[in-house]
Amino acid sequence: MPIVHVYMWSEVSRKAKAKIIKGITKVFEELGIPPHAVEVVIQEVPKENWGVEGEQASEKLKEAKPP
Amino acid sequence: MPIVHVYMWSEVSRKAKAKIIKGITKVFEELGIPPHAVEVVIQEVPKENWGVEGEQASEKLKEAKPP
Amino acid sequence: MPIVHVYMWSEVSRKAKAKIIKGITKVFEELGIPPHAVEVVIQEVPKENWGVEGEQASEKLKEAKPP
Amino acid sequence: MPIVHVYMWSEVSRKAKAKIIKGITKVFEELGIPPHAVEVVIQEVPKENWGVEGEQASEKLKEAKPP
Amino acid sequence: MPIVHVYMWSEVSRKAKAKIIKGITKVFEELGIPPHAVEVVIQEVPKENWGVEGEQASEKLKEAKPP
Amino acid sequence: MPIVHVYMWSEVSRKAKAKIIKGITKVFEELGIPPHAVEVVIQEVPKENWGVEGEQASEKLKEAKPP
Repeated sequence: MPIVHVYMWSEVSRKAKAKIIKGITKVFEELGIPPHAVEVVIQEVPKENWGVEGEQASEKLKEAKPP
Repeated sequence: MPIVHVYMWSEVSRKAKAKIIKGITKVFEELGIPPHAVEVVIQEVPKENWGVEGEQASEKLKEAKPP
Repeated sequence: MPIVHVYMWSEVSRKAKAKIIKGITKVFEELGIPPHAVEVVIQEVPKENWGVEGEQASEKLKEAKPP
Repeated sequence: MPIVHVYMWSEVSRKAKAKIIKGITKVFEELGIPPHAVEVVIQEVPKENWGVEGEQASEKLKEAKPP
Repeated sequence: MPIVHVYMWSEVSRKAKAKIIKGITKVFEELGIPPHAVEVVIQEVPKENWGVEGEQASEKLKEAKPP
Repeated sequence: MPIVHVYMWSEVSRKAKAKIIKGITKVFEELGIPPHAVEVVIQEVPKENWGVEGEQASEKLKEAKPP
């Protein structure tokens, strides 16, 4: 405990993934939870599968990219 | 708010995805929620990863296809 | 298939829940999926557990209510 | 985007929730994502519903508490 | 790894929860995964929040109960 | 009911998937739930997307493999 599921658009860089995992784990460490107890799972989802305001992000947010 | 996670078999058509996103967003609009507040995330899962009645859908429902 | 998980703030009215379930199921019916194949699970989450822009919705969106 | 679902044992303090939401949002801000795009949902789960090593956390980790 | 999220109707008995946790953990043990690596999280959801065939389970399946 | 979401590292063998689905379904059968009511969804996640102790499993657990 805790388990953290992160949902983002596909093609997050390897470096950003490392920072997300490290950063989120640290948030819990600062609350007194040992890092080995924290599991972070990043789920990458294609922009055409992600709906924003009733539209696919691949249409609505054409230029936007994940970190 | 709300966040909606949809789990379906892989290879949903682009058109069906657009309809799912639009349709679900509209369900909430009709309840007075502004569409920009609705996020829909479609997760496609291979049929061999989907268990129905104790069997893989790729075996049990060989002919069935997502929309 | 499909499975739909909906996350909303707590205290959604019984009537709104019925409309969400009916409405989402219909979205898939219109794509040719039989209604008995659609499962919808609404998860109600207290506003103090929901973060928006780095703050608890119970603070940031004090007046806002679920349908 | 992103959506973050956090699963923890029940009875997380209000203060800890605020820190989790703020901290996780900041992790993404540091990657260039605007804070209004980050949604964090904390799901509290009773210890008797949480299995660790095949046992309920309410039995196996009797003394442990969430932050 | 693995993480297992189980969604069921509310009011699962304490005994059934223990069996679910033990049983699922064992499924992975038999595949060579050490039990301390398996986390099982049971999420109980009120029947009125669960949609089956477009209706609330609290209406459609009035008599049915979780184990 | 129930719905079971299993998260594992990518490249689980077809055979292991079949055993997971069969085994988990059986756990619920033994509690009196008919197998057709059990849905199991296995989500495979690349090791570089899975954080353990603040690090990517692809780094920290280089040799480890899913079943």
